[in-house]
Amino acid sequence: MLELRLVQGSLLKKVLESIKDLVNDANFYCSSTGFSLHAVDSSHVAVVSLLLRSEGFEHYRCDRNLCMGMNLGNMSKMLKCAGNDDIITIKADDGGDTVTFMFESPTQDKIADFEMKLMDIESDHIGLPDAEYHSIVRMPSNEFSRICKDLSTIGDTVAISVTKEEVKFSTAGDIGTANIVLRQNTTVDKPEDAIVIEMKEPVSLSLALRYMNSFTKATPLSDTVTISLSSSSELPVVVEYKVAEMGYIRYYLAPKIEEEEDTNP
Amino acid sequence: MLELRLVQGSLLKKVLESIKDLVNDANFYCSSTGFSLHAVDSSHVAVVSLLLRSEGFEHYRCDRNLCMGMNLGNMSKMLKCAGNDDIITIKADDGGDTVTFMFESPTQDKIADFEMKLMDIESDHIGLPDAEYHSIVRMPSNEFSRICKDLSTIGDTVAISVTKEEVKFSTAGDIGTANIVLRQNTTVDKPEDAIVIEMKEPVSLSLALRYMNSFTKATPLSDTVTISLSSSSELPVVVEYKVAEMGYIRYYLAPKIEEEEDTNP
Amino acid sequence: MLELRLVQGSLLKKVLESIKDLVNDANFYCSSTGFSLHAVDSSHVAVVSLLLRSEGFEHYRCDRNLCMGMNLGNMSKMLKCAGNDDIITIKADDGGDTVTFMFESPTQDKIADFEMKLMDIESDHIGLPDAEYHSIVRMPSNEFSRICKDLSTIGDTVAISVTKEEVKFSTAGDIGTANIVLRQNTTVDKPEDAIVIEMKEPVSLSLALRYMNSFTKATPLSDTVTISLSSSSELPVVVEYKVAEMGYIRYYLAPKIEEEEDTNP
Repeated sequence: MLELRLVQGSLLKKVLESIKDLVNDANFYCSSTGFSLHAVDSSHVAVVSLLLRSEGFEHYRCDRNLCMGMNLGNMSKMLKCAGNDDIITIKADDGGDTVTFMFESPTQDKIADFEMKLMDIESDHIGLPDAEYHSIVRMPSNEFSRICKDLSTIGDTVAISVTKEEVKFSTAGDIGTANIVLRQNTTVDKPEDAIVIEMKEPVSLSLALRYMNSFTKATPLSDTVTISLSSSSELPVVVEYKVAEMGYIRYYLAPKIEEEEDTNP
Repeated sequence: MLELRLVQGSLLKKVLESIKDLVNDANFYCSSTGFSLHAVDSSHVAVVSLLLRSEGFEHYRCDRNLCMGMNLGNMSKMLKCAGNDDIITIKADDGGDTVTFMFESPTQDKIADFEMKLMDIESDHIGLPDAEYHSIVRMPSNEFSRICKDLSTIGDTVAISVTKEEVKFSTAGDIGTANIVLRQNTTVDKPEDAIVIEMKEPVSLSLALRYMNSFTKATPLSDTVTISLSSSSELPVVVEYKVAEMGYIRYYLAPKIEEEEDTNP
Repeated sequence: MLELRLVQGSLLKKVLESIKDLVNDANFYCSSTGFSLHAVDSSHVAVVSLLLRSEGFEHYRCDRNLCMGMNLGNMSKMLKCAGNDDIITIKADDGGDTVTFMFESPTQDKIADFEMKLMDIESDHIGLPDAEYHSIVRMPSNEFSRICKDLSTIGDTVAISVTKEEVKFSTAGDIGTANIVLRQNTTVDKPEDAIVIEMKEPVSLSLALRYMNSFTKATPLSDTVTISLSSSSELPVVVEYKVAEMGYIRYYLAPKIEEEEDTNP
């Protein structure tokens, strides 16, 4: 039997909004460690990985490991029926074919339960490399979201270059070019406004803005976002948002191979 | 001659927004008692009934009973041109073929008059049964609106069951099922937040969510809504919103006959 | 070389939003006097004229007169990427084929530069008559915007009549007629709320609401709008919004010739 009670139910609502546009159907895993998901996006380019640790739940009962296949669109429809202050409990029987989401209003005047059918989903094996990252940038999540959105009005691809003192986001398109430079800044009033660059090696790589914009759907989850980049073009970039103190949502995206335009005869 | 001056003109704006999606053309009646409307919705399933009592107007002159046929879409277009703080006066001549809406800004700097052509509309005879209701539920209008909207994402029909202590709203659809239970609660800080159940007999019946959602367009008119249900499936449910201290808007909807699925061979 | 630094960058953003729906491509002129534009709208009916005087810029360098052809849609896309508190600098080289918009955040943590290709645009010769206006109305810009929008729900043309004490806006359409009267009012708490009429001669003329509604896109630029009317039907109406203390945006529109319906046999 499974019974996971999350007092800050709005977190689960926001998590779903962060995933549902990227992945249609996915398996959620539940073990004594926590509630998690690893899924490839529907176009097989990006990977999303979610962990909500068991300690973050007010009550966490998971008698045996469970894998529950869910349609994320339908799950999102149900979670949208929870109030932002509601307590959400996820319930399932071992071997059952449904999951129940229970929503309790803070005053306990209103109790809702929504039961959803589970699906059989074949899991992709997702091997994420145990990578060493050469540059890690932490910045306000809404600033990152704004930059991705702004650059999308000009081009399709963002080039990210990290040096010791600054990170540069660039794009080019039919109407012109754009460069946005953020300078490292750790002397801010609010720690979440800091722009922190940890650079072992300068990194410069290109990413599809379409996916970056999908990742920024997680912005309401956290005030900051961490972007980890490697100078090896084989390693994916990782964009991570913390989920309160209880876990994270991470997006992985392979860099675009630079087209070497000048070497063609 | 007709001259009805309503200081809180925004009420009339809200009344129109509550009706215009349900009924296209309707007759408004004006007598010494008040300004009223009784109309069947355009699909001939629901009935809407409006009364604004003469005492609620600052000035109320109605020399003889008048029946004025209006297109509610056009009337709504004109009333939308009134500011929310404007005083609205409805004017018509006996036997004339137009009605004039006059809008005065609070400072009297701006005076607008909008003249609309009247229509000849054949009135449906609407016989509303003088019913005894077995259960009456009063609840916050925005909570009722939220429940109807939420359940519509899952199913088409809502089953409402009233017992002494609680009212349950249920639905089912392709993606699953949903139950929302509200408990009677009269010990609240603000009286409009109370959930009050007056039950003579337990009632359980099914209603089309499409219409319930239309009725909730009246939510801005009142903080509370009253739902009256009868255990006889021939009597319509009544959903009532007060219009300030001067009247009401009532929606009538016949329950769906339960399909007896189990008796089929 | 050209380098114009505007501390209140949001003004330039708002200016573009005021023009871009009316004109697709236009030449901006830069001289020691200021930064300006004169363009005919794409349907060749209205004229828009912009002036931002050099004194309004924190830094204004313009080595020689420049004419820069820009696509206003693309320029607006780029300016939308500037934050509302950003400082905007416009840069161009003499004889170059690009213009650069630089956006600096107030904290200087974020510096963006957007480079746009210039276009060759044949300039219309626009002769604006040196007119004497018989009536000038100054009123709150949001009130003017509201009136144009409201009347558009009823008709296509607004008749404006100015007398010593009031200005009347009227329209007629299939669903009825509308008249909105504003009374002169100079005894207001906030000077921008005043309705001021300077009348030498009563004026009455008709204008296409479609254009008037386009002009009101400039409403965010200024709390007040000035409408100048001439009793000669050959002179265009001028609708003017101030751009802070540094300039203006003016729209010119020829009145509609009144159709003399009664003279036809």
